[in-house]
Amino acid sequence: MIPPSHPRYRSLITRERLARCAQKGIVTPEGLAAHGRGEAFDYLIGERTTDSACIAERTAAALLKSARHPVISVNGNTAALAASEISSLQKASGALVEVNLFHRTEKRVQQIEHLLCEAGADVFSGESERLLPLHHDRAWCRRGGIFSADVVLVPLEDGDRCEALVGMGKTVVAIDLNPLSRTARTASLTIVDELTRALPQITHACYGLSKNEGIDLIASLDNHYLLTDAIREMTMRLSHALD
Amino acid sequence: MIPPSHPRYRSLITRERLARCAQKGIVTPEGLAAHGRGEAFDYLIGERTTDSACIAERTAAALLKSARHPVISVNGNTAALAASEISSLQKASGALVEVNLFHRTEKRVQQIEHLLCEAGADVFSGESERLLPLHHDRAWCRRGGIFSADVVLVPLEDGDRCEALVGMGKTVVAIDLNPLSRTARTASLTIVDELTRALPQITHACYGLSKNEGIDLIASLDNHYLLTDAIREMTMRLSHALD
Repeated sequence: MIPPSHPRYRSLITRERLARCAQKGIVTPEGLAAHGRGEAFDYLIGERTTDSACIAERTAAALLKSARHPVISVNGNTAALAASEISSLQKASGALVEVNLFHRTEKRVQQIEHLLCEAGADVFSGESERLLPLHHDRAWCRRGGIFSADVVLVPLEDGDRCEALVGMGKTVVAIDLNPLSRTARTASLTIVDELTRALPQITHACYGLSKNEGIDLIASLDNHYLLTDAIREMTMRLSHALD
Repeated sequence: MIPPSHPRYRSLITRERLARCAQKGIVTPEGLAAHGRGEAFDYLIGERTTDSACIAERTAAALLKSARHPVISVNGNTAALAASEISSLQKASGALVEVNLFHRTEKRVQQIEHLLCEAGADVFSGESERLLPLHHDRAWCRRGGIFSADVVLVPLEDGDRCEALVGMGKTVVAIDLNPLSRTARTASLTIVDELTRALPQITHACYGLSKNEGIDLIASLDNHYLLTDAIREMTMRLSHALD
Protein backbone atom coordinates (compact mmCIF):
# COMPACT_ATOMS: atom_id res chain seq x y z
CA MET A 1 0.00 0.00 0.00
CA ILE A 2 1.31 3.42 -1.04
CA PRO A 3 0.37 6.03 1.60
CA PRO A 4 -1.74 8.91 0.19
CA SER A 5 0.72 11.27 1.89
CA HIS A 6 3.38 10.25 -0.66
CA PRO A 7 4.07 13.27 -2.90
CA ARG A 8 4.03 11.12 -6.05
CA TYR A 9 0.86 9.27 -5.01
CA ARG A 10 -1.02 9.68 -8.32
CA SER A 11 1.89 8.53 -10.44
CA LEU A 12 2.55 5.55 -8.14
CA ILE A 13 -1.14 4.56 -8.22
CA THR A 14 -1.06 4.54 -12.04
CA ARG A 15 2.03 2.33 -11.86
CA GLU A 16 0.13 -0.01 -9.53
CA ARG A 17 -2.68 -0.23 -12.11
CA LEU A 18 -0.17 -1.13 -14.79
CA ALA A 19 1.44 -3.58 -12.37
CA ARG A 20 -1.91 -5.35 -11.91
CA CYS A 21 -2.31 -5.53 -15.70
CA ALA A 22 1.24 -6.90 -15.85
CA GLN A 23 0.27 -9.72 -13.49
CA LYS A 24 -2.53 -10.66 -15.89
CA GLY A 25 -0.11 -10.52 -18.84
CA ILE A 26 -1.82 -7.55 -20.51
CA VAL A 27 1.17 -5.30 -19.87
CA THR A 28 4.68 -6.69 -20.37
CA PRO A 29 7.60 -5.95 -18.01
CA GLU A 30 9.18 -4.04 -20.91
CA GLY A 31 5.94 -2.08 -21.17
CA LEU A 32 6.28 -1.04 -17.52
CA ALA A 33 9.78 0.29 -18.17
CA ALA A 34 8.55 2.11 -21.28
CA HIS A 35 5.83 3.70 -19.14
CA GLY A 36 8.50 4.95 -16.76
CA ARG A 37 10.31 6.63 -19.64
CA GLY A 38 7.10 8.40 -20.52
CA GLU A 39 6.60 9.52 -16.92
CA ALA A 40 9.99 11.23 -16.96
CA PHE A 41 9.18 13.21 -20.11
CA ASP A 42 5.70 14.03 -18.80
CA TYR A 43 7.31 15.44 -15.69
CA LEU A 44 9.55 17.61 -17.88
CA ILE A 45 6.60 18.94 -19.86
CA GLY A 46 4.80 19.86 -16.64
CA GLU A 47 2.23 17.04 -16.68
CA ARG A 48 -0.15 19.16 -18.74
CA THR A 49 -1.26 19.59 -22.36
CA THR A 50 0.81 22.36 -23.94
CA ASP A 51 -0.62 24.75 -26.54
CA SER A 52 1.31 23.03 -29.35
CA ALA A 53 0.11 19.58 -28.19
CA CYS A 54 -3.43 20.95 -28.30
CA ILE A 55 -2.91 21.97 -31.94
CA ALA A 56 -1.48 18.51 -32.65
CA GLU A 57 -4.55 16.88 -31.07
CA ARG A 58 -6.93 18.96 -33.19
CA THR A 59 -4.91 18.12 -36.29
CA ALA A 60 -5.08 14.42 -35.38
CA ALA A 61 -8.86 14.71 -35.20
CA ALA A 62 -8.90 16.40 -38.62
CA LEU A 63 -6.77 13.59 -40.12
CA LEU A 64 -8.91 10.83 -38.61
CA LYS A 65 -12.16 12.49 -39.70
CA SER A 66 -11.01 13.09 -43.28
CA ALA A 67 -9.45 9.64 -43.69
CA ARG A 68 -10.84 7.04 -46.06
CA HIS A 69 -9.88 4.15 -43.74
CA PRO A 70 -8.62 5.30 -40.31
CA VAL A 71 -7.31 2.73 -37.80
CA ILE A 72 -6.37 3.08 -34.13
CA SER A 73 -3.59 0.60 -33.30
CA VAL A 74 -3.73 -0.54 -29.66
CA ASN A 75 -0.99 -2.23 -27.61
CA GLY A 76 -0.96 -3.53 -24.03
CA ASN A 77 -0.04 -0.29 -22.29
CA THR A 78 -2.64 1.67 -24.24
CA ALA A 79 -5.39 -0.80 -23.37
CA ALA A 80 -4.38 -0.89 -19.71
CA LEU A 81 -4.26 2.89 -19.38
CA ALA A 82 -7.02 4.05 -21.68
CA ALA A 83 -9.45 1.37 -22.92
CA SER A 84 -12.50 3.59 -22.38
CA GLU A 85 -10.81 6.65 -23.94
CA ILE A 86 -10.05 4.50 -27.03
CA SER A 87 -13.67 3.42 -27.16
CA SER A 88 -14.88 7.04 -27.01
CA LEU A 89 -12.45 8.11 -29.73
CA GLN A 90 -13.63 5.27 -31.94
CA LYS A 91 -17.22 6.48 -31.63
CA ALA A 92 -16.21 10.06 -32.42
CA SER A 93 -13.89 9.28 -35.33
CA GLY A 94 -15.37 6.15 -36.90
CA ALA A 95 -11.94 4.51 -36.89
CA LEU A 96 -11.29 0.78 -36.72
CA VAL A 97 -9.67 -0.39 -33.48
CA GLU A 98 -7.05 -3.10 -34.01
CA VAL A 99 -4.73 -4.73 -31.49
CA ASN A 100 -1.06 -4.87 -32.51
CA LEU A 101 1.63 -6.04 -30.10
CA PHE A 102 5.41 -6.00 -29.89
CA HIS A 103 5.45 -9.00 -27.52
CA ARG A 104 2.78 -10.93 -29.35
CA THR A 105 1.01 -14.08 -28.21
CA GLU A 106 -2.49 -15.14 -29.19
CA LYS A 107 -3.42 -15.10 -25.51
CA ARG A 108 -2.30 -11.49 -25.05
CA VAL A 109 -4.12 -10.40 -28.21
CA GLN A 110 -7.32 -11.96 -26.89
CA GLN A 111 -6.92 -10.49 -23.39
CA ILE A 112 -6.43 -7.01 -24.79
CA GLU A 113 -9.32 -7.36 -27.25
CA HIS A 114 -11.49 -8.45 -24.33
CA LEU A 115 -10.43 -5.45 -22.23
CA LEU A 116 -11.27 -3.10 -25.11
CA CYS A 117 -14.65 -4.76 -25.73
CA GLU A 118 -15.52 -4.47 -22.04
CA ALA A 119 -14.83 -0.73 -22.32
CA GLY A 120 -17.29 -0.48 -25.22
CA ALA A 121 -14.95 -0.61 -28.21
CA ASP A 122 -15.88 -2.46 -31.39
CA VAL A 123 -12.65 -4.37 -32.01
CA PHE A 124 -11.59 -5.35 -35.51
CA SER A 125 -10.42 -8.90 -35.02
CA GLY A 126 -9.88 -12.09 -36.97
CA GLU A 127 -6.97 -13.66 -38.86
CA SER A 128 -3.64 -11.83 -38.91
CA GLU A 129 -0.91 -12.10 -41.52
CA ARG A 130 2.77 -11.05 -41.56
CA LEU A 131 2.17 -7.99 -43.72
CA LEU A 132 4.46 -5.25 -42.41
CA PRO A 133 8.15 -5.11 -43.43
CA LEU A 134 9.53 -5.81 -39.93
CA HIS A 135 11.67 -8.54 -38.35
CA HIS A 136 9.71 -9.01 -35.17
CA ASP A 137 6.16 -9.89 -34.25
CA ARG A 138 4.86 -6.42 -34.92
CA ALA A 139 4.88 -7.44 -38.60
CA TRP A 140 1.56 -9.16 -37.92
CA CYS A 141 -1.56 -7.24 -38.78
CA ARG A 142 -4.85 -7.69 -40.58
CA ARG A 143 -5.31 -7.13 -44.33
CA GLY A 144 -8.57 -5.24 -43.82
CA GLY A 145 -7.19 -3.26 -40.88
CA ILE A 146 -3.82 -1.54 -40.46
CA PHE A 147 -2.51 -2.91 -43.78
CA SER A 148 -5.21 -1.08 -45.74
CA ALA A 149 -5.36 2.03 -43.57
CA ASP A 150 -4.55 5.48 -44.93
CA VAL A 151 -4.35 7.09 -41.47
CA VAL A 152 -3.12 5.14 -38.43
CA LEU A 153 -3.14 6.46 -34.87
CA VAL A 154 -0.36 4.73 -32.95
CA PRO A 155 -0.29 5.62 -29.27
CA LEU A 156 2.93 4.55 -27.49
CA GLU A 157 4.51 3.10 -30.61
CA ASP A 158 8.01 1.73 -31.22
CA GLY A 159 10.24 3.42 -33.77
CA ASP A 160 10.65 0.44 -36.11
CA ARG A 161 6.99 0.05 -36.67
CA CYS A 162 6.34 3.75 -37.05
CA GLU A 163 9.02 3.87 -39.78
CA ALA A 164 7.55 0.83 -41.53
CA LEU A 165 4.07 2.34 -41.58
CA VAL A 166 5.32 5.68 -42.89
CA GLY A 167 7.40 3.77 -45.48
CA MET A 168 4.20 2.12 -46.68
CA GLY A 169 2.83 5.57 -47.47
CA LYS A 170 0.46 5.87 -44.54
CA THR A 171 -0.19 9.01 -42.53
CA VAL A 172 0.95 8.05 -39.02
CA VAL A 173 -0.21 9.95 -35.94
CA ALA A 174 1.89 9.10 -32.88
CA ILE A 175 1.26 9.91 -29.23
CA ASP A 176 4.71 9.98 -27.66
CA LEU A 177 5.95 11.98 -24.67
CA ASN A 178 9.54 11.74 -25.86
CA PRO A 179 9.99 14.34 -28.62
CA LEU A 180 13.43 12.89 -29.40
CA SER A 181 12.32 9.31 -30.05
CA ARG A 182 12.49 7.81 -33.52
CA THR A 183 8.73 7.42 -33.39
CA ALA A 184 8.26 11.12 -32.64
CA ARG A 185 10.62 12.14 -35.42
CA THR A 186 9.35 9.67 -38.01
CA ALA A 187 5.60 10.08 -37.57
CA SER A 188 3.63 12.34 -39.87
CA LEU A 189 2.16 14.02 -36.79
CA THR A 190 3.41 13.63 -33.22
CA ILE A 191 1.33 14.48 -30.18
CA VAL A 192 3.74 15.11 -27.29
CA ASP A 193 1.24 14.57 -24.50
CA GLU A 194 0.22 11.93 -22.00
CA LEU A 195 -2.15 9.29 -23.42
CA THR A 196 -5.12 9.81 -21.10
CA ARG A 197 -4.96 13.59 -21.61
CA ALA A 198 -4.45 13.36 -25.38
CA LEU A 199 -7.19 10.89 -26.35
CA PRO A 200 -10.15 12.86 -24.87
CA GLN A 201 -8.84 16.02 -26.54
CA ILE A 202 -8.81 14.28 -29.94
CA THR A 203 -12.29 12.91 -29.28
CA HIS A 204 -13.57 16.36 -28.30
CA ALA A 205 -12.08 17.88 -31.48
CA CYS A 206 -13.65 15.15 -33.65
CA TYR A 207 -17.07 16.40 -32.57
CA GLY A 208 -16.25 20.11 -32.68
CA LEU A 209 -14.16 20.71 -35.81
CA SER A 210 -15.75 22.14 -38.92
CA LYS A 211 -14.64 20.75 -42.27
CA ASN A 212 -12.84 23.99 -43.14
CA GLU A 213 -11.01 24.13 -39.81
CA GLY A 214 -9.91 20.54 -40.47
CA ILE A 215 -8.58 21.41 -43.93
CA ASP A 216 -6.67 24.39 -42.50
CA LEU A 217 -5.13 22.33 -39.70
CA ILE A 218 -3.94 19.62 -42.09
CA ALA A 219 -2.57 22.19 -44.55
CA SER A 220 -0.53 23.90 -41.84
CA LEU A 221 0.74 20.70 -40.19
CA ASP A 222 4.42 21.21 -39.30
CA ASN A 223 5.71 18.31 -37.21
CA HIS A 224 9.16 19.82 -36.83
CA TYR A 225 7.58 22.85 -35.18
CA LEU A 226 5.51 20.65 -32.86
CA LEU A 227 8.58 18.72 -31.71
CA THR A 228 10.70 21.86 -31.37
CA ASP A 229 8.03 23.49 -29.26
CA ALA A 230 7.78 20.45 -26.96
CA ILE A 231 11.56 20.51 -26.54
CA ARG A 232 11.45 24.24 -25.82
CA GLU A 233 8.89 23.64 -23.04
CA MET A 234 11.03 20.88 -21.52
CA THR A 235 14.23 22.89 -21.76
CA MET A 236 12.57 25.85 -20.09
CA ARG A 237 11.25 23.76 -17.21
CA LEU A 238 14.56 21.97 -16.74
CA SER A 239 16.60 25.15 -16.70
CA HIS A 240 14.35 26.80 -14.09
CA ALA A 241 13.97 23.65 -11.98
CA LEU A 242 16.44 24.66 -9.29
CA ASP A 243 15.46 28.35 -9.15
CA MET B 1 13.45 -12.08 -28.82
CA ILE B 2 14.64 -8.55 -29.54
CA PRO B 3 16.56 -8.47 -32.85
CA PRO B 4 20.16 -7.18 -32.48
CA SER B 5 19.40 -4.84 -35.37
CA HIS B 6 17.08 -2.84 -33.09
CA PRO B 7 18.66 0.59 -32.48
CA ARG B 8 17.86 0.44 -28.77
CA TYR B 9 19.10 -3.16 -28.41
CA ARG B 10 21.31 -2.60 -25.33
CA SER B 11 18.64 -0.74 -23.41
CA LEU B 12 16.01 -3.34 -24.31
CA ILE B 13 18.32 -6.18 -23.25
CA THR B 14 18.81 -4.53 -19.85
CA ARG B 15 15.04 -4.26 -19.55
CA GLU B 16 14.78 -7.97 -20.34
CA ARG B 17 17.25 -8.72 -17.52
CA LEU B 18 15.14 -6.67 -15.14
CA ALA B 19 12.04 -8.40 -16.49
CA ARG B 20 13.54 -11.80 -15.63
CA CYS B 21 14.35 -10.56 -12.12
CA ALA B 22 10.78 -9.29 -11.94
CA GLN B 23 9.47 -12.77 -12.68
CA LYS B 24 11.47 -14.09 -9.72
CA GLY B 25 10.12 -11.30 -7.51
CA ILE B 26 13.49 -9.59 -7.04
CA VAL B 27 12.38 -6.53 -9.01
CA THR B 28 8.87 -5.17 -8.47
CA PRO B 29 6.65 -3.90 -11.31
CA GLU B 30 7.00 -0.45 -9.78
CA GLY B 31 10.76 -0.95 -9.92
CA LEU B 32 10.54 -1.58 -13.66
CA ALA B 33 8.70 1.69 -14.17
CA ALA B 34 11.23 3.51 -12.00
CA HIS B 35 13.98 2.05 -14.18
CA GLY B 36 12.28 3.49 -17.24
CA ARG B 37 12.29 6.94 -15.66
CA GLY B 38 16.01 6.58 -15.14
CA GLU B 39 16.52 5.53 -18.77
CA ALA B 40 14.89 8.74 -19.96
CA PHE B 41 17.19 10.94 -17.89
CA ASP B 42 20.21 8.84 -18.89
CA TYR B 43 19.30 9.44 -22.50
CA LEU B 44 19.18 13.18 -21.80
CA ILE B 45 22.61 13.16 -20.17
CA GLY B 46 24.07 11.34 -23.17
CA GLU B 47 24.42 7.89 -21.54
CA ARG B 48 27.88 8.79 -20.27
CA THR B 49 29.57 9.96 -17.05
CA THR B 50 29.84 13.73 -17.14
CA ASP B 51 32.79 15.60 -15.63
CA SER B 52 30.68 16.78 -12.70
CA ALA B 53 29.40 13.24 -12.07
CA CYS B 54 33.02 12.09 -12.02
CA ILE B 55 33.79 14.64 -9.28
CA ALA B 56 30.69 13.43 -7.39
CA GLU B 57 31.90 9.83 -7.65
CA ARG B 58 35.35 10.71 -6.30
CA THR B 59 33.74 12.68 -3.48
CA ALA B 60 31.53 9.67 -2.68
CA ALA B 61 34.66 7.54 -2.41
CA ALA B 62 36.21 10.09 -0.07
CA LEU B 63 33.09 10.11 2.14
CA LEU B 64 32.89 6.32 2.30
CA LYS B 65 36.62 5.95 3.04
CA SER B 66 36.62 8.56 5.82
CA ALA B 67 33.39 7.34 7.43
CA ARG B 68 33.29 5.73 10.85
CA HIS B 69 30.47 3.36 9.88
CA PRO B 70 29.62 3.45 6.14
CA VAL B 71 26.67 1.42 4.81
CA ILE B 72 25.56 0.66 1.24
CA SER B 73 21.77 0.29 1.16
CA VAL B 74 20.63 -2.10 -1.58
CA ASN B 75 17.16 -2.47 -3.10
CA GLY B 76 15.80 -4.86 -5.72
CA ASN B 77 16.72 -2.84 -8.82
CA THR B 78 20.24 -2.23 -7.53
CA ALA B 79 20.80 -5.93 -6.84
CA ALA B 80 19.38 -6.94 -10.22
CA LEU B 81 21.48 -4.43 -12.14
CA ALA B 82 24.72 -4.33 -10.18
CA ALA B 83 25.23 -7.08 -7.58
CA SER B 84 28.86 -7.63 -8.56
CA GLU B 85 29.61 -3.89 -8.72
CA ILE B 86 28.20 -3.57 -5.17
CA SER B 87 30.43 -6.43 -4.05
CA SER B 88 33.53 -4.75 -5.54
CA LEU B 89 32.68 -1.42 -3.94
CA GLN B 90 32.23 -3.13 -0.58
CA LYS B 91 35.75 -4.58 -0.83
CA ALA B 92 37.21 -1.20 -1.82
CA SER B 93 35.37 0.88 0.77
CA GLY B 94 34.93 -1.46 3.72
CA ALA B 95 31.23 -0.52 3.91
CA LEU B 96 28.46 -2.75 5.26
CA VAL B 97 25.99 -3.93 2.62
CA GLU B 98 22.40 -3.99 3.88
CA VAL B 99 19.20 -4.76 1.98
CA ASN B 100 16.40 -2.23 2.40
CA LEU B 101 13.19 -2.43 0.37
CA PHE B 102 10.21 -0.22 -0.39
CA HIS B 103 8.02 -3.24 -1.23
CA ARG B 104 9.27 -5.38 1.62
CA THR B 105 8.60 -9.05 2.22
CA GLU B 106 10.87 -11.48 4.06
CA LYS B 107 11.06 -13.55 0.89
CA ARG B 108 12.25 -10.64 -1.24
CA VAL B 109 14.83 -9.64 1.38
CA GLN B 110 16.21 -13.19 1.35
CA GLN B 111 16.24 -13.43 -2.47
CA ILE B 112 18.14 -10.17 -2.78
CA GLU B 113 20.57 -11.10 0.00
CA HIS B 114 21.17 -14.37 -1.82
CA LEU B 115 21.82 -12.59 -5.13
CA LEU B 116 24.34 -10.28 -3.45
CA CYS B 117 26.09 -13.17 -1.68
CA GLU B 118 26.39 -15.07 -4.97
CA ALA B 119 28.10 -11.98 -6.43
CA GLY B 120 30.64 -12.08 -3.59
CA ALA B 121 29.21 -9.49 -1.21
CA ASP B 122 29.31 -9.95 2.56
CA VAL B 123 25.73 -9.05 3.45
CA PHE B 124 24.86 -7.60 6.85
CA SER B 125 21.75 -9.53 7.75
CA GLY B 126 19.71 -10.56 10.77
CA GLU B 127 16.79 -9.07 12.69
CA SER B 128 15.28 -5.81 11.46
CA GLU B 129 13.37 -3.24 13.52
CA ARG B 130 11.11 -0.31 12.57
CA LEU B 131 13.75 2.33 13.27
CA LEU B 132 13.37 5.01 10.60
CA PRO B 133 10.70 7.75 10.90
CA LEU B 134 8.66 6.61 7.87
CA HIS B 135 5.12 5.39 7.31
CA HIS B 136 5.86 2.54 4.97
CA ASP B 137 7.99 -0.58 5.04
CA ARG B 138 11.21 1.26 4.35
CA ALA B 139 11.13 2.15 8.05
CA TRP B 140 12.62 -1.29 8.68
CA CYS B 141 16.36 -1.51 9.10
CA ARG B 142 18.96 -2.99 11.39
CA ARG B 143 20.24 -1.29 14.55
CA GLY B 144 23.84 -2.18 13.77
CA GLY B 145 23.49 -1.26 10.08
CA ILE B 146 21.80 1.75 8.50
CA PHE B 147 20.46 3.00 11.84
CA SER B 148 23.99 3.45 13.20
CA ALA B 149 25.63 4.57 9.95
CA ASP B 150 27.26 7.98 9.59
CA VAL B 151 27.52 7.72 5.78
CA VAL B 152 24.91 5.84 3.72
CA LEU B 153 25.16 5.20 -0.02
CA VAL B 154 21.63 4.90 -1.40
CA PRO B 155 21.52 3.98 -5.08
CA LEU B 156 18.08 4.44 -6.69
CA GLU B 157 16.45 5.73 -3.52
CA ASP B 158 12.98 7.14 -2.89
CA GLY B 159 12.65 10.70 -1.67
CA ASP B 160 10.92 9.91 1.63
CA ARG B 161 13.65 7.68 2.85
CA CYS B 162 16.42 9.97 1.69
CA GLU B 163 14.82 12.81 3.67
CA ALA B 164 14.43 10.61 6.75
CA LEU B 165 18.08 9.58 6.68
CA VAL B 166 19.29 13.16 6.23
CA GLY B 167 16.93 14.20 9.04
CA MET B 168 18.65 11.67 11.30
CA GLY B 169 21.91 13.53 10.73
CA LYS B 170 23.49 11.08 8.33
CA THR B 171 25.55 11.96 5.28
CA VAL B 172 23.54 10.51 2.41
CA VAL B 173 25.11 9.80 -0.98
CA ALA B 174 22.47 9.18 -3.66
CA ILE B 175 22.87 7.80 -7.18
CA ASP B 176 19.96 9.27 -9.11
CA LEU B 177 19.71 10.09 -12.82
CA ASN B 178 16.92 12.60 -12.18
CA PRO B 179 18.55 15.79 -10.90
CA LEU B 180 15.08 17.20 -10.09
CA SER B 181 13.93 14.38 -7.81
CA ARG B 182 13.45 14.92 -4.10
CA THR B 183 16.16 12.36 -3.48
CA ALA B 184 18.62 14.27 -5.68
CA ARG B 185 17.79 17.57 -3.98
CA THR B 186 17.74 16.21 -0.43
CA ALA B 187 20.86 14.06 -0.44
CA SER B 188 24.13 15.40 0.93
CA LEU B 189 25.81 14.34 -2.32
CA THR B 190 24.04 13.32 -5.53
CA ILE B 191 25.70 11.36 -8.29
CA VAL B 192 23.71 12.01 -11.49
CA ASP B 193 24.93 8.96 -13.38
CA GLU B 194 23.77 5.49 -14.32
CA LEU B 195 24.28 2.89 -11.60
CA THR B 196 26.57 0.46 -13.44
CA ARG B 197 28.76 3.34 -14.62
CA ALA B 198 28.84 5.09 -11.24
CA LEU B 199 29.67 2.19 -8.92
CA PRO B 200 32.94 1.11 -10.64
CA GLN B 201 34.05 4.76 -10.69
CA ILE B 202 33.53 5.04 -6.93
CA THR B 203 35.34 1.74 -6.41
CA HIS B 204 38.24 2.90 -8.56
CA ALA B 205 38.47 6.17 -6.61
CA CYS B 206 38.42 4.30 -3.27
CA TYR B 207 41.71 2.66 -4.25
CA GLY B 208 43.30 5.70 -5.86
CA LEU B 209 42.48 8.69 -3.65
CA SER B 210 45.08 10.03 -1.24
CA LYS B 211 43.90 11.18 2.19
CA ASN B 212 44.56 14.83 1.29
CA GLU B 213 42.66 14.59 -1.99
CA GLY B 214 39.76 13.10 -0.04
CA ILE B 215 39.79 15.94 2.48
CA ASP B 216 39.83 18.51 -0.35
CA LEU B 217 36.96 16.84 -2.20
CA ILE B 218 34.79 16.74 0.92
CA ALA B 219 35.63 20.34 1.81
CA SER B 220 34.60 21.57 -1.63
CA LEU B 221 31.44 19.47 -1.93
CA ASP B 222 28.70 21.64 -3.49
CA ASN B 223 25.65 19.56 -4.31
CA HIS B 224 23.75 22.50 -5.79
CA TYR B 225 26.56 22.91 -8.32
CA LEU B 226 26.50 19.18 -9.15
CA LEU B 227 22.76 19.24 -9.80
CA THR B 228 22.92 22.49 -11.76
CA ASP B 229 25.66 21.11 -13.96
CA ALA B 230 23.68 17.91 -14.67
CA ILE B 231 20.67 20.03 -15.62
CA ARG B 232 22.89 22.19 -17.83
CA GLU B 233 24.11 19.07 -19.68
CA MET B 234 20.55 17.83 -20.18
CA THR B 235 19.27 21.22 -21.30
CA MET B 236 22.10 21.51 -23.81
CA ARG B 237 21.43 18.08 -25.29
CA LEU B 238 17.69 18.67 -25.42
CA SER B 239 17.99 22.02 -27.15
CA HIS B 240 20.35 20.66 -29.82
CA ALA B 241 18.45 17.41 -30.30
CA LEU B 242 16.72 18.40 -33.50
CA ASP B 243 19.69 20.25 -35.06
